[in-house]
Amino acid sequence: MKRNVKVSTAVIRRLPRYYRQLSELQESGVVRISSSALGKSMGLTASQIRQDLFCFGGFGQQGYGYKVDGLKEEIGEILGISQGHTLIVLGTGNLGRAIIQNFRFSTNGFQLLAAFDIDPAVVGTQIAGVPVRHADELEDFVAANRVDVGLLTVPIAAAQRMGDRLMEAGVRGIWNFTNYELACSRPDVVVESVHFSDSLLTLSYLISQREDMEENP
Amino acid sequence: MKRNVKVSTAVIRRLPRYYRQLSELQESGVVRISSSALGKSMGLTASQIRQDLFCFGGFGQQGYGYKVDGLKEEIGEILGISQGHTLIVLGTGNLGRAIIQNFRFSTNGFQLLAAFDIDPAVVGTQIAGVPVRHADELEDFVAANRVDVGLLTVPIAAAQRMGDRLMEAGVRGIWNFTNYELACSRPDVVVESVHFSDSLLTLSYLISQREDMEENP
Repeated sequence: MKRNVKVSTAVIRRLPRYYRQLSELQESGVVRISSSALGKSMGLTASQIRQDLFCFGGFGQQGYGYKVDGLKEEIGEILGISQGHTLIVLGTGNLGRAIIQNFRFSTNGFQLLAAFDIDPAVVGTQIAGVPVRHADELEDFVAANRVDVGLLTVPIAAAQRMGDRLMEAGVRGIWNFTNYELACSRPDVVVESVHFSDSLLTLSYLISQREDMEENP
Repeated sequence: MKRNVKVSTAVIRRLPRYYRQLSELQESGVVRISSSALGKSMGLTASQIRQDLFCFGGFGQQGYGYKVDGLKEEIGEILGISQGHTLIVLGTGNLGRAIIQNFRFSTNGFQLLAAFDIDPAVVGTQIAGVPVRHADELEDFVAANRVDVGLLTVPIAAAQRMGDRLMEAGVRGIWNFTNYELACSRPDVVVESVHFSDSLLTLSYLISQREDMEENP
């Protein structure tokens, strides 16, 4: 598919939301949707929807709207869902375990190959069918298997060290849940962080703003 | 503090990152930092830093940079960290439990009051010192205690129903981990969602883009 580069970060960040929204529409049996209805369901304007999707070659038809199936498939293609990405998890604490057990990797086009830890109580066991290996085996495993992404959920004190090991071992991306701002010295590796505190502080800000407005209208 | 409204969502989203970065600098003993050094550590330009902070009244001094302590405190104030927000958790599955046990609520200005579930095996117990109550008690609890935020980590099938109950009960904000796009009918309630899949799909996109570039340089 032709892409009208260069796409802004804001648009890229919205693509997964489109994909999620279209998946929900598809499950609800919606076949076709107008840009204004799609926008309304996502808190965006129809014009923003059209602009966003135009960045990727412009689907949709004037006066007809978007075919839910087709648009979902095209966005999924752009997001690389069909590329069969692979992933390993570093750290099987509460959060690592929660993600291994509950996150729908395959729906997002990822195959979870293995988890790594140093705790003798978990090494050698399985979590939801996923084998837990010793962290010492990390480099050998990545050398022997194509691993696209390393999910990092180790204690903060080990975050940079384990992140560096993942990068050196040759992963293409790190999905960082450590709440630590990883330094990335390799231009060929992408770091994507989920910072819970950033999200809660945004909520804190928005609530505080409203309180101010109510007190000083 | 005087604020130059209206502040864009992008700037608001960056404020917690500033706060986090300044906290790390403070812990490393850094007293003063230039906008360019602060920018570099965050992947932003010096000019963007100055613009962002100007939105909130403009701190910093030409040729001198920013005092780390003072700037951190002011941003914390803007984020409402000193307001003593309170929070309850709905759902004590793996993820709820991980967050209760590991997330540093107090560092982010939040006090975790209680958790709620329907599983008889956990109701009446404590998780990391936090009492787990039955979900039936939710409305009474919120009526008797000032609860600012409800953290939602229930199964997706119960997400909207429990979100509605939180809104009706009178919380100001919902911190949504259900991976469900909550419909919010109350203009006085803020919903902030953490969608793991959006983050992974963004990473998937960025990796796929690089693969394309390597194959078709």
